[in-house]
Amino acid sequence: MSVTAANGFLAAGVACGLKNSGGLDLALVQNVGPIASAATVFTSNRCQANPVLWSKQVMSDGQVRAIVLNSGGANCYTGSQGFQTTHATAEAVADALEVSAGDVLVCSTGLIGEQLDLAKLRAGVADASGALTGDSDAAASDAAALAAAQAIMTTDTTPKQSTFTSQEGWTIGGMAKGAGMLAPGLATMLVVITTDAALSPAELDAALRRATAVTFDRLDSDGCMSTNDTVSLLASGASGVTPGADDFAAALTAVCQDLTLQLQADAEGADHDVAIEVVNAASESEAVEVARAVSRSNLFKAAIFGKDPNWGRVLAAVGTTQAAFDPYNIDVSFNGVQVCTAGEPDQPRELVDLTPRAVHILIDLHAGDTRATVWTNDLTHDYVHENSAYSS
Amino acid sequence: MSVTAANGFLAAGVACGLKNSGGLDLALVQNVGPIASAATVFTSNRCQANPVLWSKQVMSDGQVRAIVLNSGGANCYTGSQGFQTTHATAEAVADALEVSAGDVLVCSTGLIGEQLDLAKLRAGVADASGALTGDSDAAASDAAALAAAQAIMTTDTTPKQSTFTSQEGWTIGGMAKGAGMLAPGLATMLVVITTDAALSPAELDAALRRATAVTFDRLDSDGCMSTNDTVSLLASGASGVTPGADDFAAALTAVCQDLTLQLQADAEGADHDVAIEVVNAASESEAVEVARAVSRSNLFKAAIFGKDPNWGRVLAAVGTTQAAFDPYNIDVSFNGVQVCTAGEPDQPRELVDLTPRAVHILIDLHAGDTRATVWTNDLTHDYVHENSAYSS
Repeated sequence: MSVTAANGFLAAGVACGLKNSGGLDLALVQNVGPIASAATVFTSNRCQANPVLWSKQVMSDGQVRAIVLNSGGANCYTGSQGFQTTHATAEAVADALEVSAGDVLVCSTGLIGEQLDLAKLRAGVADASGALTGDSDAAASDAAALAAAQAIMTTDTTPKQSTFTSQEGWTIGGMAKGAGMLAPGLATMLVVITTDAALSPAELDAALRRATAVTFDRLDSDGCMSTNDTVSLLASGASGVTPGADDFAAALTAVCQDLTLQLQADAEGADHDVAIEVVNAASESEAVEVARAVSRSNLFKAAIFGKDPNWGRVLAAVGTTQAAFDPYNIDVSFNGVQVCTAGEPDQPRELVDLTPRAVHILIDLHAGDTRATVWTNDLTHDYVHENSAYSS
Repeated sequence: MSVTAANGFLAAGVACGLKNSGGLDLALVQNVGPIASAATVFTSNRCQANPVLWSKQVMSDGQVRAIVLNSGGANCYTGSQGFQTTHATAEAVADALEVSAGDVLVCSTGLIGEQLDLAKLRAGVADASGALTGDSDAAASDAAALAAAQAIMTTDTTPKQSTFTSQEGWTIGGMAKGAGMLAPGLATMLVVITTDAALSPAELDAALRRATAVTFDRLDSDGCMSTNDTVSLLASGASGVTPGADDFAAALTAVCQDLTLQLQADAEGADHDVAIEVVNAASESEAVEVARAVSRSNLFKAAIFGKDPNWGRVLAAVGTTQAAFDPYNIDVSFNGVQVCTAGEPDQPRELVDLTPRAVHILIDLHAGDTRATVWTNDLTHDYVHENSAYSS
């Protein structure tokens, strides 16, 4: 049930004609309180879409009553007309729900450089407002959350949802979309997480940054960073419970991690889900730097597609980083087979089985005692096909 | 005739069984003087192959009498045994040519993590030493240079050669190999350039760094950096002419540029040769940073393969850089059609014809008055195919 799992939230997903397919393309989530705390993480891309520019203004007071999301167009590089479209969409939601437009987040995803049709958006907002469901009938609430999760899909093949319920009586639920452009600092990734925990915007912000830093930020499917990424966390306080900061952060991280792996599993054209784990690094940031460098090597990723345990391509990528290590004291394992020890060949590469979808690359830097994992995918014919035909 | 075009150089290319195909796989170039000045640029990858480690020692005095190059194996991550193989290869050349092993550069290219067969290398050196040709018969000299250029090919489909002759009577000739892993600071790229100009090691070094910085360093075919890259420049002084520094650097840059574009044209699986030109940048390094970010966007590269002028992917990549620009004052043209002006859609993308192999992307940052071009290729099915099957 994802975004409606927590008390105090209503959701809907409708079709308003933005997608050529006629599929669901507008999602609306309302926070009916009693509180309206929120936190967000936006793309770190300097080229930011109009909905990101708008939503940053909304977040100035940490109060959010609703979030509206559309697929079928990113509304990025669409100039002042595009910004007016975002603004008018928020106003339409505000009118329908009798809240302030300044408390309405907007997210968009799809092709860059095309204007969205405001009339369709307004019609979609009207439909969605009338369809908002939650808190009452469980089946209807589930269906509404699913429709919302479907409405934000672009090249995704399945909706992504996750929930966590604490024994203390509070719940976290989330939905996500994203199948390409998955890279650091998020990437064509829209995530809405709701909770009925009673937390302030500052408490939510701290937990959200802790959680995204080790989950969404470490999913690097294709090295490309989107202009529209937004992860939002809305709290209704409807449970009446204020969890401990560590408890809440751990639960939020679990939900984010679940959604991250769902995004990885649905990455455009991927044949393999690759976890690149760097151990014994001098620092966590260096572990991430090394893992990310490997995750961005097209040669490594193509080799994985070819089921080829080409560990030289791992070390060639490691060598491009500034992390502390001795090139002749690195170990590399593919799916548990240590093919390189201290910079020399160890087990025969023929022992490695890259048939399963899940691939685990372990890189031991022997330079410290911290570790990190970055998740990526292989580079496949289907990736090239899907991304050579996306806008046509 | 490339490496034998300048007086004072002999070359040979032979087959010694390192390549499974039985093709030419060992090249030898000898500088017969009167001088033996040399300069080199090596990979900036921290994981460096044994021949790179060896050759760096050779360069400590700037004197080089011969260079031996093999395909069929990179001799990287092969430990002390691998280093001994490189050392023994240099010794074999030294014995055959009656020079010091400390004046013999060694280059290797091929798969990482496999030992080279020293017996085959020794037999190849013996054959090549006996076959060395140059300075005498023009046709035989051409054939020897061509054989050397063929012997260093891996996935290259054609040998790459270039020459320049000055009216002052000095000549530069070069050969290159490289078809994948073409990225900054060079990449699975081996280049040997010879000249009969009379120049000191320091003069050669200055000219070589000027030339590579604007040519090989700006070829970024797939973002992957090799462990073996070596560009070497050998001077025999046989012309007796010492050219002016600017004249020599300009000629050397022209030869390097010619070889760079030959490498781009033969990049693994590429359908398009893409020149990404950034103009009106605040500095040359920022222009390069922006162009390189675009050259590394898999989404952009896949779109070019699909003949899709998806300029949003250009701007999304530009936005990941730290260069000075206003995201809403950038212009983008594809093959002369300005599809984005001041961050908004301009000419319809349908006007862009991406049918030709040559693609020109022009990005105007409106932030200064410097420019730079980075050359790359599209991301194709054939690239994935070739790189998923390379080592198997």
